[in-house]
Amino acid sequence: MAEEEVSNKHVILKNYVSGFPKESDMEVKTTALKLKLPDGGDYSGAILVKNLYLSCDPYMRSRMRKLEGHYAEAYTPGSPIVGLGVARVLESNNPKFNKGDLLWGLTRWEEYSVIADPETRFKIHNTDVPLSYYTGILGMPGMTAYAGFFEICSPKKGERVFISAASGAVGQLVGQFAKAFGCYVVGSAGTKEKVDLLKNKFGFDEAFNYKEEQDLNAALKRYFPDGIDIYFENVGGKMLDAVLLNMRVHGRIAVCGLISQYNLEQHEGIHNLFCLITKRIKMEGFLVFDYYHLYPKFLDMVLPQIKEGKIAYVEDIAEGLENAPSALIGLFSGRNVGKQVVVVARE
Amino acid sequence: MAEEEVSNKHVILKNYVSGFPKESDMEVKTTALKLKLPDGGDYSGAILVKNLYLSCDPYMRSRMRKLEGHYAEAYTPGSPIVGLGVARVLESNNPKFNKGDLLWGLTRWEEYSVIADPETRFKIHNTDVPLSYYTGILGMPGMTAYAGFFEICSPKKGERVFISAASGAVGQLVGQFAKAFGCYVVGSAGTKEKVDLLKNKFGFDEAFNYKEEQDLNAALKRYFPDGIDIYFENVGGKMLDAVLLNMRVHGRIAVCGLISQYNLEQHEGIHNLFCLITKRIKMEGFLVFDYYHLYPKFLDMVLPQIKEGKIAYVEDIAEGLENAPSALIGLFSGRNVGKQVVVVARE
Repeated sequence: MAEEEVSNKHVILKNYVSGFPKESDMEVKTTALKLKLPDGGDYSGAILVKNLYLSCDPYMRSRMRKLEGHYAEAYTPGSPIVGLGVARVLESNNPKFNKGDLLWGLTRWEEYSVIADPETRFKIHNTDVPLSYYTGILGMPGMTAYAGFFEICSPKKGERVFISAASGAVGQLVGQFAKAFGCYVVGSAGTKEKVDLLKNKFGFDEAFNYKEEQDLNAALKRYFPDGIDIYFENVGGKMLDAVLLNMRVHGRIAVCGLISQYNLEQHEGIHNLFCLITKRIKMEGFLVFDYYHLYPKFLDMVLPQIKEGKIAYVEDIAEGLENAPSALIGLFSGRNVGKQVVVVARE
Repeated sequence: MAEEEVSNKHVILKNYVSGFPKESDMEVKTTALKLKLPDGGDYSGAILVKNLYLSCDPYMRSRMRKLEGHYAEAYTPGSPIVGLGVARVLESNNPKFNKGDLLWGLTRWEEYSVIADPETRFKIHNTDVPLSYYTGILGMPGMTAYAGFFEICSPKKGERVFISAASGAVGQLVGQFAKAFGCYVVGSAGTKEKVDLLKNKFGFDEAFNYKEEQDLNAALKRYFPDGIDIYFENVGGKMLDAVLLNMRVHGRIAVCGLISQYNLEQHEGIHNLFCLITKRIKMEGFLVFDYYHLYPKFLDMVLPQIKEGKIAYVEDIAEGLENAPSALIGLFSGRNVGKQVVVVARE
């Protein structure tokens, strides 16, 4: 297929976004691509991949605006969205990668991508699980849940754990890791369907719909009459203020995300930080890429749990690159149920 | 002097306080006291002390209102203020204390106090330093600076340290500990006189008057062009928001106090907590009484530094119990220069 020419669909960010992103902030364009890597020069270590599964993640919102001093670069308007995904190597100029290899890591939202610097991608060795899992439970969200819970929160058996956005890609795993570890686990989510999933599928002790609560402080007191030891923070805003009032002495807060704030021009103010002192709370933000050295250890824990059916995992699958913009923006209204994945191609 | 009767002046909290405390929230009353401990019963382990030096500390503001779930109990309106101080034992029903012993720890704002449960007070063994130092550098504020800086911030040589309310009882010590440890140290304070003290007496590398800065973010960028590794937080509010924007990756914030907020009915909102994630910051509140087991180790470090003149320490001395209310409320307008002490008696 050396000179085979194919059409290559891309999802392009048209302009920087303010407020809630809309489907019309992105457009799908088609170009022609020769399925052949140029030799040498800029392409000396490059690979050509076919993208199979793309991951929709909340952090992507932050790359849709101009950024200053952020850990991730802003997207380039007029260029494809960049995100995590699962891909198959079609051609390689890089001795570390071979045709046919399966990878997960950064790619672009298009059918075929040339990746000039593939070194930070992970090779997929275990293929007896759905490949899409490498966008979630076996990829960045899985590692995020693992590092955030075990490394940041230093849990002890019997501790009381609260997780917001608990049915999301990360939250559902934190809750299950915490239950398996011997903690009491409560999650919040934004629909009845998600609350049912938390209780009936993911085995949380309790769950509630934060949209139905007039008073988050009272809701937390109902589920945590003795207070919260560990809060896995995915949302920020009013929930964080209510949680601070309900933390126990020497509690820990892992700050993983603040999805309720990502589309606001100015973030809501947090008023209850005095609780950090009175209850001697540790609150720590983290980014998963500081913990990727633990990935093999994580796989050793989680792969058997998946194969033995001890861990439940729910994906929300959008079919086709055309539906990727809608899938991505659905994250911010909480439309997805479980991990939001886009299927570009199944093999 | 078994049945000697003396007059005993007390500083009484009249009522719970809202907003800034005023002198008129307190009153000085005199009663008569027999200088004799009753035997047995409630007094079986009690001691009678003469109070020498009283400590004015920012945390005391929080005890002037009704509290729920706080680490300290509210004061009782109609009763004397409770606080830390240095006292001499006049009589003892407790085998661990003898007449003439010098102590520091909780006492009441009055000339003479009966202490029913003296066990948590520290005996003073080193008397070749001013006794008032046990309200500050050798007491709770000194231990607070030590524990907050070394235990919470885990400093490394060469790191960039910022301290707010830096000329206060705790801040001046944190800065000097940090300098001696090999850090770059900048402090903020609210008058030219305090800024001069920081630079000329306490040896800070730089200091600035936050009241003269239109833009705290710009001020911090001026002194920390490469960002802040460690923030020792004494004030909260707008300063915290500006610091968050200027923290370095893997920075640490020790939350010791939030004095700018203590007189507000609702605390100001903090808007920049997303920096906790992007910069992987650990922010931890602490209370000194979790660290008192380190007190002997702390004395071993700090006593030689004091005796060799390697550490500077500034006190603001108010003479007489009548002046205690004014000294206490002066803390909240920043009137004191250095550690605010009230002398009740010199021996």
